[in-house]
Amino acid sequence: MSVGHPLVSELGEQALIHRITARLAAPAWVVVGPGDDAAVIVPERGLLQVLTTDAIVDGVHVDSRIMPADAIGYRAIAVNLSDLAAMGAAPRALLLSLALPGTLEVPALDAMLDGMIDVATAHHAAIIGGNITRTPGPLQIHVTAVGSIRRRRVLTRRGARPGDDVYVTGVLGRAAAGLRLLQATPAPGLAPTRDFSPSERRYLYPEPRLKAGRQLSLNGVATSCMDLSDGLADGVRQIAAASGVGMILDGASLPCDPEARAWPSPEVPLDLVLSGGDDYELLFTARPKSSGRLRHVRKRLGDLPITRIGRVTRDRGLLLVDEHGTHELPAGYEHFR
Amino acid sequence: MSVGHPLVSELGEQALIHRITARLAAPAWVVVGPGDDAAVIVPERGLLQVLTTDAIVDGVHVDSRIMPADAIGYRAIAVNLSDLAAMGAAPRALLLSLALPGTLEVPALDAMLDGMIDVATAHHAAIIGGNITRTPGPLQIHVTAVGSIRRRRVLTRRGARPGDDVYVTGVLGRAAAGLRLLQATPAPGLAPTRDFSPSERRYLYPEPRLKAGRQLSLNGVATSCMDLSDGLADGVRQIAAASGVGMILDGASLPCDPEARAWPSPEVPLDLVLSGGDDYELLFTARPKSSGRLRHVRKRLGDLPITRIGRVTRDRGLLLVDEHGTHELPAGYEHFR
Repeated sequence: MSVGHPLVSELGEQALIHRITARLAAPAWVVVGPGDDAAVIVPERGLLQVLTTDAIVDGVHVDSRIMPADAIGYRAIAVNLSDLAAMGAAPRALLLSLALPGTLEVPALDAMLDGMIDVATAHHAAIIGGNITRTPGPLQIHVTAVGSIRRRRVLTRRGARPGDDVYVTGVLGRAAAGLRLLQATPAPGLAPTRDFSPSERRYLYPEPRLKAGRQLSLNGVATSCMDLSDGLADGVRQIAAASGVGMILDGASLPCDPEARAWPSPEVPLDLVLSGGDDYELLFTARPKSSGRLRHVRKRLGDLPITRIGRVTRDRGLLLVDEHGTHELPAGYEHFR
Repeated sequence: MSVGHPLVSELGEQALIHRITARLAAPAWVVVGPGDDAAVIVPERGLLQVLTTDAIVDGVHVDSRIMPADAIGYRAIAVNLSDLAAMGAAPRALLLSLALPGTLEVPALDAMLDGMIDVATAHHAAIIGGNITRTPGPLQIHVTAVGSIRRRRVLTRRGARPGDDVYVTGVLGRAAAGLRLLQATPAPGLAPTRDFSPSERRYLYPEPRLKAGRQLSLNGVATSCMDLSDGLADGVRQIAAASGVGMILDGASLPCDPEARAWPSPEVPLDLVLSGGDDYELLFTARPKSSGRLRHVRKRLGDLPITRIGRVTRDRGLLLVDEHGTHELPAGYEHFR
């Protein structure tokens, strides 16, 4: 960190709140915006509402010693939008709950806001309210995202059925490879001093797959869906458990990022692909007879690959078949151990 | 803390999530409850939606060394419901975002949930989703509360007009006096070993004034309203600033808690009443001609006092008149200094 920047502890709560709210624009459906006891909005008529909350903690989900501040703000919003994407929802509103260490520099806070506003604006989500507090611990950003969806279009983790195909968007392991690159090179800290490689950018600025989630939902393609925050193996486990099914994955078909393939652990082939987190791609299942509708979705999504990686089974096992044989799937990343 | 209890770090994320969600009941308007990527609800038809987020951080807003765990959980929810009360809204849904130190004992987590579920249930709010993460820092509980209200019944901080009367519900300073009592006696820690006095209970289990907020809203009494989290002086300052007015308070009329009156600082008379936080009473303004409707509200609220404490002025000053003369109002509690 550079020396001489003002700290958030020197600004005071009211000035901090003003600094943030002054940058927010309120759409017409916001009746009361930031600055009152609560925000008031007009819900979208005839639609269901989708609500999710997710947090990032410095030292757990992000590392401010090796990440630019705008990437931290970006990620806090993006991971929540990714949860909306996994439900097939269209984003609408965001609430921020910031816990800031008093030693955070004001320019770093401003850059975090840059990242938040960038990704929120890109996906048509308005920041309608929030809270700010100091913390004696590390920086935390808790976000609640609100979206909307038609009743019959909701995607959950529960609908996978034996015989369904298993698909994933994008490529896997790229974010995990990017994180390892970031960790291997000198730390830029909150104020970055170098350009980032494509995989580093993928880790720093994950793209919430909102368009893909919408298309899978609107076209009635997916029988189940979730976003991959903690690796493919975790996602497969979650959908299988929620749906009461098993899955068998074809290792050769996995859309591995080339950089991720270069980092296999000796024990687990495809380590970063299966267990590396932070890809935020969508994992979903679809009936084989939906292939026509899936083609339509593929066309709408342009460059984004959608790859068939396996099959849903009645047997509850979770298996990976590769050139060495059939393996049980390794566990995903476990936040609490 | 006692020895030998399991720690949340030993349980693992999935077991923790299950431990929490197993205790939650979903009303019929919850289409997708906890456990998926997001919750899905049916919004209330024809009503506006009120959304707020607030957090408690151990060591800043609460002190786990002197508070029982259920009071920490209770407070995290209550402060959010209090924000809904200040808008005149009826509570509906809650989302929890927990950041837990790995060393937190599982019985303490269970007790926190007891407190959360107690106050949520008492006020007809359903916990529909959440997130859980570990933190290397102190415990944090971030909550988002969702309520509903009719468009013409929204209470904000902006509507105070010169000539309005200023009112407050309940008594002031009791929570601050209770906190000082708690701090003065040996620490029970997260597992309490003694009974609490009325003022201690007031600090530990603040009552969100939802019924009062609803009545003030439904009867069109309040021209402005907010809840007192950071003391009366702060509240007066906030409403005055948002409404572009001043206020003059009558010190003799302030509904001081007797215990709070016993703790005046030498410089500031009524210190705990004006600057002591955590009362979570409602501060509101009303036109003098609304006195009939206010009488009706008073009847509906039974034992809860509603006291006229001052007047809104065109002059932007914030003044307190007492037997020693006219003083400028001291500042409220400032979280960031």
